[in-house]
Amino acid sequence: MNQTPNLDPGTLIATPVDVRSSPLIAHRPIPIDAVSLNDPIWSPRIRINRQRTIPGQYRFLEDTGRLDNFRRVAGGCDGEFSGLYFNDSDVYKWLEAASWALAQASDEEREEITQLIDTAIGIVASAQHDDGYLDTYFSCERESLRWSNLKDCHELYCAGHLIQAAVAHARTTGKASLLDIATRFADLICEVFGPVSDGKREQTDGHPVIEMALVELYRLTGNRQYLDTARFFIDVRGRGSIGGDPYHQDATPLREQREMVGHAVRAVYLNAGAADLLAEERDPALRSALDAMWRNQVSRRSYVSGGIGSRWEGEAFGADYELPNARAYTESCAAIGSIMWAWRMMSLAAEDNTRWADAIEHTLYNALLPGLSLDGEHYFYQNPLEDDGHHQRQPWFGCACCPPNIARMLAMLPGMVATVTTDRSVGEADVSHDTVWLHLLAQGEVRVDLPAGGSIVFEVRTRYPWYGEIEIEVTELVDAGNLTLQVRIPGWAEGASGEVNGESLSSNETAAGQYATLTRSWSVGDRIKLSLPMRIRRLEAHPRVTENAGRIALMRGPMLYCIEAAGNPRGDVRDLVLGNARDLHPGWRPEMLGGCVVISGTAELDPPDAGWSNMLYREVGEGRAGSTESVAMQAIPYHLWANRERGQITVWLRRSQS
Amino acid sequence: MNQTPNLDPGTLIATPVDVRSSPLIAHRPIPIDAVSLNDPIWSPRIRINRQRTIPGQYRFLEDTGRLDNFRRVAGGCDGEFSGLYFNDSDVYKWLEAASWALAQASDEEREEITQLIDTAIGIVASAQHDDGYLDTYFSCERESLRWSNLKDCHELYCAGHLIQAAVAHARTTGKASLLDIATRFADLICEVFGPVSDGKREQTDGHPVIEMALVELYRLTGNRQYLDTARFFIDVRGRGSIGGDPYHQDATPLREQREMVGHAVRAVYLNAGAADLLAEERDPALRSALDAMWRNQVSRRSYVSGGIGSRWEGEAFGADYELPNARAYTESCAAIGSIMWAWRMMSLAAEDNTRWADAIEHTLYNALLPGLSLDGEHYFYQNPLEDDGHHQRQPWFGCACCPPNIARMLAMLPGMVATVTTDRSVGEADVSHDTVWLHLLAQGEVRVDLPAGGSIVFEVRTRYPWYGEIEIEVTELVDAGNLTLQVRIPGWAEGASGEVNGESLSSNETAAGQYATLTRSWSVGDRIKLSLPMRIRRLEAHPRVTENAGRIALMRGPMLYCIEAAGNPRGDVRDLVLGNARDLHPGWRPEMLGGCVVISGTAELDPPDAGWSNMLYREVGEGRAGSTESVAMQAIPYHLWANRERGQITVWLRRSQS
Repeated sequence: MNQTPNLDPGTLIATPVDVRSSPLIAHRPIPIDAVSLNDPIWSPRIRINRQRTIPGQYRFLEDTGRLDNFRRVAGGCDGEFSGLYFNDSDVYKWLEAASWALAQASDEEREEITQLIDTAIGIVASAQHDDGYLDTYFSCERESLRWSNLKDCHELYCAGHLIQAAVAHARTTGKASLLDIATRFADLICEVFGPVSDGKREQTDGHPVIEMALVELYRLTGNRQYLDTARFFIDVRGRGSIGGDPYHQDATPLREQREMVGHAVRAVYLNAGAADLLAEERDPALRSALDAMWRNQVSRRSYVSGGIGSRWEGEAFGADYELPNARAYTESCAAIGSIMWAWRMMSLAAEDNTRWADAIEHTLYNALLPGLSLDGEHYFYQNPLEDDGHHQRQPWFGCACCPPNIARMLAMLPGMVATVTTDRSVGEADVSHDTVWLHLLAQGEVRVDLPAGGSIVFEVRTRYPWYGEIEIEVTELVDAGNLTLQVRIPGWAEGASGEVNGESLSSNETAAGQYATLTRSWSVGDRIKLSLPMRIRRLEAHPRVTENAGRIALMRGPMLYCIEAAGNPRGDVRDLVLGNARDLHPGWRPEMLGGCVVISGTAELDPPDAGWSNMLYREVGEGRAGSTESVAMQAIPYHLWANRERGQITVWLRRSQS
Repeated sequence: MNQTPNLDPGTLIATPVDVRSSPLIAHRPIPIDAVSLNDPIWSPRIRINRQRTIPGQYRFLEDTGRLDNFRRVAGGCDGEFSGLYFNDSDVYKWLEAASWALAQASDEEREEITQLIDTAIGIVASAQHDDGYLDTYFSCERESLRWSNLKDCHELYCAGHLIQAAVAHARTTGKASLLDIATRFADLICEVFGPVSDGKREQTDGHPVIEMALVELYRLTGNRQYLDTARFFIDVRGRGSIGGDPYHQDATPLREQREMVGHAVRAVYLNAGAADLLAEERDPALRSALDAMWRNQVSRRSYVSGGIGSRWEGEAFGADYELPNARAYTESCAAIGSIMWAWRMMSLAAEDNTRWADAIEHTLYNALLPGLSLDGEHYFYQNPLEDDGHHQRQPWFGCACCPPNIARMLAMLPGMVATVTTDRSVGEADVSHDTVWLHLLAQGEVRVDLPAGGSIVFEVRTRYPWYGEIEIEVTELVDAGNLTLQVRIPGWAEGASGEVNGESLSSNETAAGQYATLTRSWSVGDRIKLSLPMRIRRLEAHPRVTENAGRIALMRGPMLYCIEAAGNPRGDVRDLVLGNARDLHPGWRPEMLGGCVVISGTAELDPPDAGWSNMLYREVGEGRAGSTESVAMQAIPYHLWANRERGQITVWLRRSQS
């Protein structure tokens, strides 16, 4: 039964994107278990993720019939399939999240999670057909309908998540129990799908993810058919095989596409898979398409939170500059997909420019994190930037894509802190030079095994993102030799300063938006200090973002802020006018919302109907400006909204009265 | 077969809302054929409606299988039902439009339209079941499913449109051929639907319209069961009989509702039916609910065009102040429903306040009229206030509610020009005093038969809405005696002036937002002159309408303006900054778009990326303002957009550069 090549435990590392052997890559990952975070934001969330979220979600899989759908197929098809046709994918995403979580689990946690994983794998295995096919919706009474509606029915989407889960499980446990299931299904998919000239089905799935999954399965197994089939799925897209519409990412061949359109999650998953392909094969047309699409996303179709997806209808991107706040869709899953895509793009080249890591960090704090409650057991599907308090996090959803997606992203996150690159052109021709890149600034310990052998361990000590002082100390060195550390100075950190062992860095070396390049023959005890200015920044939006005209958003460091009714009892937060208030100041509030820095100041309250008497439109100059009143205002980090009593919230604040 | 009371031709008048015998009404209608318009806007549209639109739509009914669905039922159920399950309603709406059109048709037109009507009635009749039931979707293979899904399947919606068509046909032809069909079906509905305590089905339809229809059938026939059943359908709503959701107007009992929610067309159709009920029965709770809902609509949930429905998802109202421009849904049918509702509300009392007629006129010009092309054969379903030029009028739709709805509204429109009220408290106790109200200001002839006997004919001479000079001359008088003319001075017309037979009216008499009250013993040849100031008005939106912050819209008289790429070749119209430009001036352009007044002036062009370098967000003060350039700008009446080459259009213009 075991058709999978034996896994060599020596080659396995716990990382979702293992590009160590990919020919066209610069950044190589370090494994999740090489990073131990101890920061104020991620560390508690990741612990809660292992201890509460993952066991809690398993119970939902059980209680909502998602596991029963597998048991039903195994047990002779009694009763009815329950829930949505793609519910299998929730089981797989949970399996992936749980598998990555193992990489950082304590013994006790590992035992609990392993038991749940093994039980789930047993249940999943029991529903696999003899030919490898596995989809509980298209089993039993719908068995003859297999592959009959690829556009709508998510068969390859579910398969993709199964494969991703299997890769995670293999990499963190060395076991092939889930991988066997996934490769058997993947083999069937490779047999069925491909060019019609090869006698295959020349068609793809309405919801991408199979692309990323197959490339990673290729990386794990070395079996080239998976890469070939991934490329096929990218090539066939945009050629009308599933109806040709933008929603399903089928309107334009990817290499010709320049704008982000249609269903946001589908779009970024597809692009992440395409970026995976670029690590394996030269494809300039694909590269320029992805570059153009990224530019379009960040300069025309992203929220100030980093969230994407402007439209409820179709969970979709809107037109350029179409960014409504209260009706923002900004699905948590879309933020996750955007991070996956950016990570893969960043890995392709050793750019001394922090744009990718800035986007990743910004999206993590301001678009992914809002999706999760402080207790780790409630989720947002949509993440609006303005709301009247009705929108609240839920423990689960009928369409439950987001909860396990957030769980897997948190479990993967330590693996995004640092990477390593090797440059063979530096120094003597045949001596490689290693560079360790610190992308995410967070307190913890990072261990990097260097490609050339040797290793370095450093400790990061900081209260970032609440404060800008960061100390990095080298604590262990083994055969590290000459080594470059590249430490990210975020694009917003103009005026950053730093020193190494007491010696100041030049302002060029700590320029914002670049990595501080520190090449030394390092010694244990060496200390790097960085100081990032954490002043409050007032952002305005491009004039074509009509919804934000005359409004400003507050940021401090990487954190976007919002104001909600809870801390602003006077009036409605939408009526606060910030004017040119210069008294905004940050303050650490250890007791509030798990501990955070709030921004306080004075605003003018412009009563909503002052001068308007219930009119909706009036002639300019017709009404008198109402008299305003100075009130204290308090802004909190946006990701913490809706953790207190319900009420109006808004990210964008009025700048002036008119 | 003929179960309908014989129609007394002497009592029939061609009006959609015949409240002459309604006990709780002030305004009584004058028939469509009593008004002969000769104005620059409606007159040509109404003529084209008779000559091209109505015959053209009949061909669509035929070509798209809508008539074949009836033939199929009659012919033994061969083949398949084609199209949407409520396609019968398009046939009925067309029959209604064609019937009202007869009221103003020339002999030749009447012959053509009558032939089409009679053919259609024959086809419809052939599909009626023996028990009176008539719905081609729920016939043949779906016969056993009758009334099985009232929430979604529009059976009573189709019935309502059948009844409305039958009333129109009876009132304009005196024939009972369609009325017989409708009353047989209505009788069945009255038998089936009602309180469960009467052994009936206590449920309503997902899409209102049956309420208006049954009240009007009661008015035509005098059969009280139709009124009782209409009241039942209003009472049962909001009690969960069809799922309890706002989309289907079932979340709240109508008398408790205060806000406009859910599907916009459903909402205003229901409220129009409820207002019909108020003309027949005292119901203070219903009246306050409708008043509150109207206030909510006009002061929180209407576009500056008068359009309603902010959301594409659910074709629905949004939250207060949620009024996106490019993504406005503003369905043409919703504007029509809003006019129907306002007309009925206006009729209830003799208010010396033009708010209802202002709303009707404003919605006609700026929310209904944009739905129709100049050629009268292309329609908008949605009417956005900003667009990139992709949104274009179509000759027909799969869901074709709007085209025949626009056709019936145009055919009805002359009947909305004037009304008559009778006040028994003026003068001697038992001598009534008649007042003729002129609501819509448009060139033409109006003949009013007075309730007390006698009649008056007056001619309106004006180039309104392009110019503000209006002359009204009494041209015939029969036993008119002492009579009041109330002539509407629109709310925007501050500074209006007037005279009667050369004698000036006081400024109180011509105050804006009231009717000029002119009581005289009139003589043939008497002349009223009014002068409404037509200055260009710059409107701003309530600060909570975030999408319009810092923007202004231009109006002149009743006309909303927009700018489109066609007349503004330099730059993108969204980048034009109007500033405090004082050189805006109107100009008559006979050759343009059928003849219209354009507004010209100078704006500053602020290039879209000036100071932004492809950024979407930046720190306030970070970028330099780009240098602007003065360019000529030209605004056209909003209803005329998309009649030239495609391009960007916008109603709201930037007020300043920042």
